[in-house]
Amino acid sequence: MSSWSLVYHGYDPQEERLREALCTLGNGYFCTRAAAEEAEAGEHHYPGTYLAGGYNRLTSEIDGQIIENESLVNLPNWLPLSFRCVDGTWFDVERTTILDYCQTLDLRRGLLERRIRFRDAQDRTTRLTSRRLVHMNWPHLAALQWKLEAEDWDGRVQFRTALDGRIRNAGVERYRALSGRHLEPIRAGSFGRDGISLLVRTNQSRLEIAEAACTRLWEGEELQDPDRQQVETPDGYIAQLFTQPIQRGTPLVLEKNVALYTSRDPAISESEWEARRDARCAPRFETQLQAHDQAWRHLWHQFGIRFRDRDAAREERTARTLRLHTLHLLQTASPNTTDMALDVGIPPRGWTGEAYRGHIMWDELFIFPFLNLRIPEITRNILLYRFRRLTEARRAARTAGLRGAMYPWQSGSDGREESQTVHLNPRSGRWIPDHSNLQRHVNAAIVYNIWNHYEVTRDRAFLAYYGAEMILEIARLFDSLTEYDDTRERFVIRGVIGPDEYHEGYPDADQPGVDNNAYTNVLVVWALRRALELCDLLSEDALQRLRNKLALRDAELDRWRAITHRMFVPFHNGQIISQF
Amino acid sequence: MSSWSLVYHGYDPQEERLREALCTLGNGYFCTRAAAEEAEAGEHHYPGTYLAGGYNRLTSEIDGQIIENESLVNLPNWLPLSFRCVDGTWFDVERTTILDYCQTLDLRRGLLERRIRFRDAQDRTTRLTSRRLVHMNWPHLAALQWKLEAEDWDGRVQFRTALDGRIRNAGVERYRALSGRHLEPIRAGSFGRDGISLLVRTNQSRLEIAEAACTRLWEGEELQDPDRQQVETPDGYIAQLFTQPIQRGTPLVLEKNVALYTSRDPAISESEWEARRDARCAPRFETQLQAHDQAWRHLWHQFGIRFRDRDAAREERTARTLRLHTLHLLQTASPNTTDMALDVGIPPRGWTGEAYRGHIMWDELFIFPFLNLRIPEITRNILLYRFRRLTEARRAARTAGLRGAMYPWQSGSDGREESQTVHLNPRSGRWIPDHSNLQRHVNAAIVYNIWNHYEVTRDRAFLAYYGAEMILEIARLFDSLTEYDDTRERFVIRGVIGPDEYHEGYPDADQPGVDNNAYTNVLVVWALRRALELCDLLSEDALQRLRNKLALRDAELDRWRAITHRMFVPFHNGQIISQF
Repeated sequence: MSSWSLVYHGYDPQEERLREALCTLGNGYFCTRAAAEEAEAGEHHYPGTYLAGGYNRLTSEIDGQIIENESLVNLPNWLPLSFRCVDGTWFDVERTTILDYCQTLDLRRGLLERRIRFRDAQDRTTRLTSRRLVHMNWPHLAALQWKLEAEDWDGRVQFRTALDGRIRNAGVERYRALSGRHLEPIRAGSFGRDGISLLVRTNQSRLEIAEAACTRLWEGEELQDPDRQQVETPDGYIAQLFTQPIQRGTPLVLEKNVALYTSRDPAISESEWEARRDARCAPRFETQLQAHDQAWRHLWHQFGIRFRDRDAAREERTARTLRLHTLHLLQTASPNTTDMALDVGIPPRGWTGEAYRGHIMWDELFIFPFLNLRIPEITRNILLYRFRRLTEARRAARTAGLRGAMYPWQSGSDGREESQTVHLNPRSGRWIPDHSNLQRHVNAAIVYNIWNHYEVTRDRAFLAYYGAEMILEIARLFDSLTEYDDTRERFVIRGVIGPDEYHEGYPDADQPGVDNNAYTNVLVVWALRRALELCDLLSEDALQRLRNKLALRDAELDRWRAITHRMFVPFHNGQIISQF
Repeated sequence: MSSWSLVYHGYDPQEERLREALCTLGNGYFCTRAAAEEAEAGEHHYPGTYLAGGYNRLTSEIDGQIIENESLVNLPNWLPLSFRCVDGTWFDVERTTILDYCQTLDLRRGLLERRIRFRDAQDRTTRLTSRRLVHMNWPHLAALQWKLEAEDWDGRVQFRTALDGRIRNAGVERYRALSGRHLEPIRAGSFGRDGISLLVRTNQSRLEIAEAACTRLWEGEELQDPDRQQVETPDGYIAQLFTQPIQRGTPLVLEKNVALYTSRDPAISESEWEARRDARCAPRFETQLQAHDQAWRHLWHQFGIRFRDRDAAREERTARTLRLHTLHLLQTASPNTTDMALDVGIPPRGWTGEAYRGHIMWDELFIFPFLNLRIPEITRNILLYRFRRLTEARRAARTAGLRGAMYPWQSGSDGREESQTVHLNPRSGRWIPDHSNLQRHVNAAIVYNIWNHYEVTRDRAFLAYYGAEMILEIARLFDSLTEYDDTRERFVIRGVIGPDEYHEGYPDADQPGVDNNAYTNVLVVWALRRALELCDLLSEDALQRLRNKLALRDAELDRWRAITHRMFVPFHNGQIISQF
């Protein structure tokens, strides 16, 4: 185990789901959990493939309540690959005698490897080496390679390769009572000698997803051409089966090239056609790995962090942890995000599972500075996710009786508030109101992100064209949230939830929310100051255009200035800011 | 008639199609020809609504040849609005006695107005004033207003408002033998009291288009609520009919708010849902006109050209012509192009009809400088259309046995070559090969566009991140097109077509194309010089990253340099460059 790899020895069913999440591979466009190729969703395994920004909305009835949720959709599983000796059962790691098991995530190359040596019921010893990548340089591609070696036997093995669209979102325990069927099949089919493809659609957002796979078999260096039997079910599953002799000492190599396109992709004619072309034309695994490797080399050149410690073991551990986090971050948002102009933000858990439903929250605040200093083109693109939802944020402010633009606490496809308004307490079994949408400070986080991007890039064109309008509209929102308290002779903000999000109100109050959350009040002042600074920064022309468009009056700017001078901030003993 | 309006007096059926094209309204996202609301496609009318980049591919068999074409699709017609006296026939300008007819395109506001005064078979005199806009500030919206005045009669009128998806692409005479049925209906329905919507899909590219319309009626200032009868046909047509008394002196005002969304739009949940919401919530025509007007005011502030001439009539004519062209340009590519990150280029005829199938060609070369100096964010976005098709351009170069990236002469959805390879001569009735794809100089135009953008913005980040890779790959293409001619002791380029595109070969040659087209050779040198200059301009880090990625060797740069020094350029008499 080096600082460049995450290594697991032995198979542990209880730990498998955690490994799946931590060893997820992705490229900013899509991510796939590290479920074993032969595994199906169940107690110990949860294969998951998620498209950046691939949401769908479902309603469920629970306990008489109608609940609507927009979720990040688990897409058709492109992994399925299995084998069996023709006289045996399909390989299952939990029903075999494992002699050796090692799973390695190569952090440098974004490569997942699993080596298994096992003995079956007929006392045959076999080695399986599986390698996998989700291509960083060509974002529609992923590739699998299996090397199967018979140690002490000869015989015939059957392989099964599939695309499986019979998927339910079931990754999160407490969401399981909710509707989880997001996909409906459109068609499945085969192409060429070795290709299968599947076209599905999300049942509300009508996003079409096409996957195509070509699975090829080599004996040593020789490409084989076994007869293939096709299996297809109308609920969105297609497979090919084929049989091949295996001899001890001569490994069989199976490679599955997979392409994924959606109906929202730029620069395509039609998703299924493009997916088939890519799967068919993709080169061998090693060649793909070279280009993938080079893309990662460039990323690490830009994002690598050197960490030194006198304690060598601690140095290794810390360096590995930093690298694992950086890998995850770059798999969530990468140059592909920008090159494809993906209309996405960065969700708190990346695109690695279904927790928080893949929604965009305030956490980007912690991530943007790291990206800004290295590839600000990425953050530029992600800030546009907010810009395109400005109209929806204005609508939300208006609906709440406020002015300007109010971004939601949880944001998904079209930028409406996705936070739940009620919430079933899993312990008490009671419905309780959920006020997390009162976390208005998400708007300050957006100002912070725009400003931090500007401070790094000094890109005034971006600010004038996109950033300023958001900042000014958020300033307006904050202005309208603020009241003047005559007793205190200070401006105050009532009824919000701060980042200490479990403090959601007073036990005896009618209304939810707390008054004068220190973090919120301070950030509001900070944001208003940026809005005022902006007015000096923009060219006269750009400012005039914006002021016209927003009908922004001098009196508003004066009030913003007044607020920044006299905002109430709660203190303990006059010395410690009273923030949990 | 002022220099700010295009005015037509009288109705001329022969001229109607030309007026429809010239008076097209649009906002960069979609454009709609100025067909009358009550008109159907036929000899004199051709309603057309086109989405920026809304392509679909069809194959046709003509004369035993299979022809495949990707076309800009005419979308469902959102205009249909008609009326009749309950005892008469539906209003048809060609079957009535016109007393007065005036059509005005207000260039300042992007507003189309038609005023008609007419007498029907029952000797009733009526005035109809129609106004229309395609919203520049909220790109999904369009709005129609009808004011109907009974001059000398009272009675009852019936109105019909519809969305019509029974559309064939039939705008261009010589394409009519080809397949033109691009749309298939998904569903139609009504919502609320006054809403209808239609969802269709292109039958190959699987692009979904949702249109929704709310049609409301006022008598004076009073909103009416007539009973509505719904008519729907399974081939993609939905209408509402309603009847209203009309009295002389009290005009009826009909307003139709229309929203258009597609499955490719950013920041949406689902296109039909968003379209219905927008159509329902859109305010009255006058309010929409205000926001639309302001957006145009900002555009004219940035794009207005002042023109002075001693001859006042000529000044007015020239100013009007300049404004009409600028209007068309801004309707084709606008801030909406950028705000929505539309994946489009600028087609030679805008999105106003079906000529050239809406493909992207070299003509952007003439347009970019005008945009660059005013809103370079627009050209930045449009250059990305090429960047996202770099992989396809590399594929095309490889297929042609060349290196680098070869952009197509005609480019559509996914960047493959859309030029025809054979062509039916409409006069001789014979199939002749079409070699227009040999116009390699389109690649020089792309370098020119990138460079011009850089010269205006000095945006090195854009260059490093996007522009440079295209320039270097095009330089490679040009390098591989060039041979050294020992006799001339010069580099030469054989077998191309220059911008004088009717010179497509020599009468006695086996191969198409001409040798050493002066324009091409000079532009190749110019482009190679930019590629070399670029290497000095980029940061060492950025250059190294690109050179690694492209495996660009010093020997290549040396050859580029050599070509720029010794390219053959044909001269007449040693003094005049030999270019047609």
